[in-house]
Amino acid sequence: MDIHITLHGRHDLTGQIYGQLRAGIIEGRLAAHARLPSTRDLAAQLGVSRKTTLDVFDRLIAEGFLRTRAGDGTFVADGLTRLPAARAEPTSARARATGIWRKMPERMSMPMPPADITLDCDFKGGVTDKTLFPFDAWRRCINQALRTQARTGGGVASYRDPAGEQELRLGIARYLAFSRAVVCNWQDVLVTQGAQQALDLLARVVVQPGDVVAMEEPGYPPARAIFSALHARIAHVPVDEHGIVVDKLPRNTRLVYVTPSHQFPLGMPMSLARRIELLEWAAKRGAVIVEDDYDGEFRFEGRPVESLKSLDHAGLVAYVGTFSKTLFPDLRIGYVVPPATLSEPLWNARQVCDLHGCMLTQTALGAFMLDGEYAKHLRRMHKAYAQRRAALIAHLTGALAHWFEPMPSTAGIHLVTRLLEPWQEARVVAAAREAQVGLYGIAPFYAGKPLLQGVLLGYGGTSVPAIERGLKRLAGVMAAMGA
Amino acid sequence: MDIHITLHGRHDLTGQIYGQLRAGIIEGRLAAHARLPSTRDLAAQLGVSRKTTLDVFDRLIAEGFLRTRAGDGTFVADGLTRLPAARAEPTSARARATGIWRKMPERMSMPMPPADITLDCDFKGGVTDKTLFPFDAWRRCINQALRTQARTGGGVASYRDPAGEQELRLGIARYLAFSRAVVCNWQDVLVTQGAQQALDLLARVVVQPGDVVAMEEPGYPPARAIFSALHARIAHVPVDEHGIVVDKLPRNTRLVYVTPSHQFPLGMPMSLARRIELLEWAAKRGAVIVEDDYDGEFRFEGRPVESLKSLDHAGLVAYVGTFSKTLFPDLRIGYVVPPATLSEPLWNARQVCDLHGCMLTQTALGAFMLDGEYAKHLRRMHKAYAQRRAALIAHLTGALAHWFEPMPSTAGIHLVTRLLEPWQEARVVAAAREAQVGLYGIAPFYAGKPLLQGVLLGYGGTSVPAIERGLKRLAGVMAAMGA
Repeated sequence: MDIHITLHGRHDLTGQIYGQLRAGIIEGRLAAHARLPSTRDLAAQLGVSRKTTLDVFDRLIAEGFLRTRAGDGTFVADGLTRLPAARAEPTSARARATGIWRKMPERMSMPMPPADITLDCDFKGGVTDKTLFPFDAWRRCINQALRTQARTGGGVASYRDPAGEQELRLGIARYLAFSRAVVCNWQDVLVTQGAQQALDLLARVVVQPGDVVAMEEPGYPPARAIFSALHARIAHVPVDEHGIVVDKLPRNTRLVYVTPSHQFPLGMPMSLARRIELLEWAAKRGAVIVEDDYDGEFRFEGRPVESLKSLDHAGLVAYVGTFSKTLFPDLRIGYVVPPATLSEPLWNARQVCDLHGCMLTQTALGAFMLDGEYAKHLRRMHKAYAQRRAALIAHLTGALAHWFEPMPSTAGIHLVTRLLEPWQEARVVAAAREAQVGLYGIAPFYAGKPLLQGVLLGYGGTSVPAIERGLKRLAGVMAAMGA
Repeated sequence: MDIHITLHGRHDLTGQIYGQLRAGIIEGRLAAHARLPSTRDLAAQLGVSRKTTLDVFDRLIAEGFLRTRAGDGTFVADGLTRLPAARAEPTSARARATGIWRKMPERMSMPMPPADITLDCDFKGGVTDKTLFPFDAWRRCINQALRTQARTGGGVASYRDPAGEQELRLGIARYLAFSRAVVCNWQDVLVTQGAQQALDLLARVVVQPGDVVAMEEPGYPPARAIFSALHARIAHVPVDEHGIVVDKLPRNTRLVYVTPSHQFPLGMPMSLARRIELLEWAAKRGAVIVEDDYDGEFRFEGRPVESLKSLDHAGLVAYVGTFSKTLFPDLRIGYVVPPATLSEPLWNARQVCDLHGCMLTQTALGAFMLDGEYAKHLRRMHKAYAQRRAALIAHLTGALAHWFEPMPSTAGIHLVTRLLEPWQEARVVAAAREAQVGLYGIAPFYAGKPLLQGVLLGYGGTSVPAIERGLKRLAGVMAAMGA
């Protein structure tokens, strides 16, 4: 048989010959049962040593591409040459994902960092300040966790509890009881990969395709993405100054997703009366309530309203929290305190989804909480964020009052300010960007037609001087836009 | 009105009074619109300072439990007292999970650590040896990653790319090209929370309820749990000495899950001819193939067979790998190199499920790979595991040959040995446990009736001396069982 092998230089001759023979077999140029030249002849033909061709044949035989018949030479194995036909067919439609995953609407995805513009003052939401984070204390906790990790299991590493590391669950339970008035045992706490996974697991265990899920309008797009992906029918329920309008909840709602401490994105807390109305409604209808307390740790005015969880006597509320806003988002640690009936299902679901989280970070965070570092950090950040918020509000109600009106909000690390007529959100955002001020319109948070024009001002990733500069520049931008 | 408040000692008087008033309102004992005594009268009645009762009222007013009418006193707010009726109803059925999540069959869950028995030699699978892990190098990588984390984003922490940290994706792509003959760009690699999440994401984007998913019988229970949870119809396809029997695959299979490097649990590699048969079949039927290469890094005999991914010209194979077996399971890092058509859907799905993984560990592992530490560790573990495997096989084919026959296996960190007639798996496992030897039967890996009696011997978490001791003791156990 005639074999065309082209050697390029003298480097890795074995690899070159092996690769070309193998390709010839797979692509069908060397047919099944074809006899190969002897290793001696092939070596002579190519001007290489016999050892080289022997090595190549050995490898191809071991891999099943070639076979030998005693005293009869070496042949191409059969059953190997049928791929080319398959390859020739168009195949793009085969390994296709189901509809919803192929292209998610833009508004369902989290805002990613702005591409190429450098902003002098960025009011992006969902980001936090690392400059005030006690990295020294954190490094101590991480290194302590490394020692724990090396010791655990007596040198044998195995899978961990899907619910999370015990110290962290203990730290979270103590913190919730003390600071959020959510009384629970550490066994009630399921640690998750950020609040996002808590919401996904809750939805997976409660919602079936076609079930009605209610959420606030405007609301939190990543939660909407979860419910859509499960083929739920989503009811977008309006909010008023007290929170979600309970009267507008569909009667057959299976799950209600709400943000009572700090409505996302508008900011108002859900009033106590509305909370009780919602709980009563859920108890009557048999709906599960998911209470997402995503940044309620930072409260600047008034006393805290009772959490839905603490008012829940019917066992319907799953309380979800996160460290993404109090520490940083790339930590990816959140948690859920579910109703007792959902504890085991959530544990099962976490096991199926990804078994459990990162032991190192969980152990370190547990120590960080139990050592009091977390509480100290919260106090530090509370003070810093209070100053930023005060600076923001001072400008918005001062020099910018002609164009903006802040929505009432008592907590969190962002606020929303309405745009007074007749300025248009998209135009204002674009003009601000031109002036290197990062503003974010609220339109993407509406599933339907936006009822308000406004911008979200996050102060997690900025500073008082940057706020002063940015808002002065914004006043200039607005003035330049006319009126 | 008559208010019964009982003070226990003089500690936290405000809290005691507040709690009892609040409970009275929520439970309906203090009716809506009821007028409260003045703070002065209440203070006198309870023998506390006026400041205490003022503080209590302020808090209850701020929270919406009480309201004041100018010049007319303080009243219980309305809309707050309707909870008790709801609470009295039986509610356990309301916050219930859907069927599959409530109670997962035992065989679907990962083996958890044995409860209370101390084993002298434990052949548990899926665990690894930490004593040989270079914790010093790892600590350097982690501390370097901490510095990176502190610096990244100029002090602002935000969400990261759902596909994972770039250095790690680069490290994985290079490693795959060099060691696993899976040629890909770093952009093709999606980092996941262990292989389990890779499988879950793949199933979520490809499989719809009622779709047929084929897996090997016996097979990997955690994968089975994923497919069941998605309401797939699972076809349990037998394996022979070449791997999954392609002729037995249902024609309408949407996804085939296989473990070609080291069939889980039996151990034999899929032959090249069978691989090509499977690829051809999938191309004809339009099925997606998931190739789970969970411990193929440790190969002890023969040359590696081509991965399905490297033979796939039709764009149907998703290659899944993990660090759980090469480093340790609680790291929770795996990856998938999908067909191009599934890249964006998987990215979307990862974003919906949990946004992304732990930045710290990913960054550290990237450095660990790019610095060459990973390759070094693989060589070290390869040597150690080879010695353990040799010790195991020597005993199984020596003193234990009367009872056991190892299945052919060329790779991995466990092997399966058949039990020769007439010894029964469950009896042998129980007798071994009595003698402090941890054996694991293969029956739980069958979805249907087991076709073989055998035990799985993991050597990831043991040592040569422990193996010698354990198998000597096992020989005694077997002899004592008769014949």
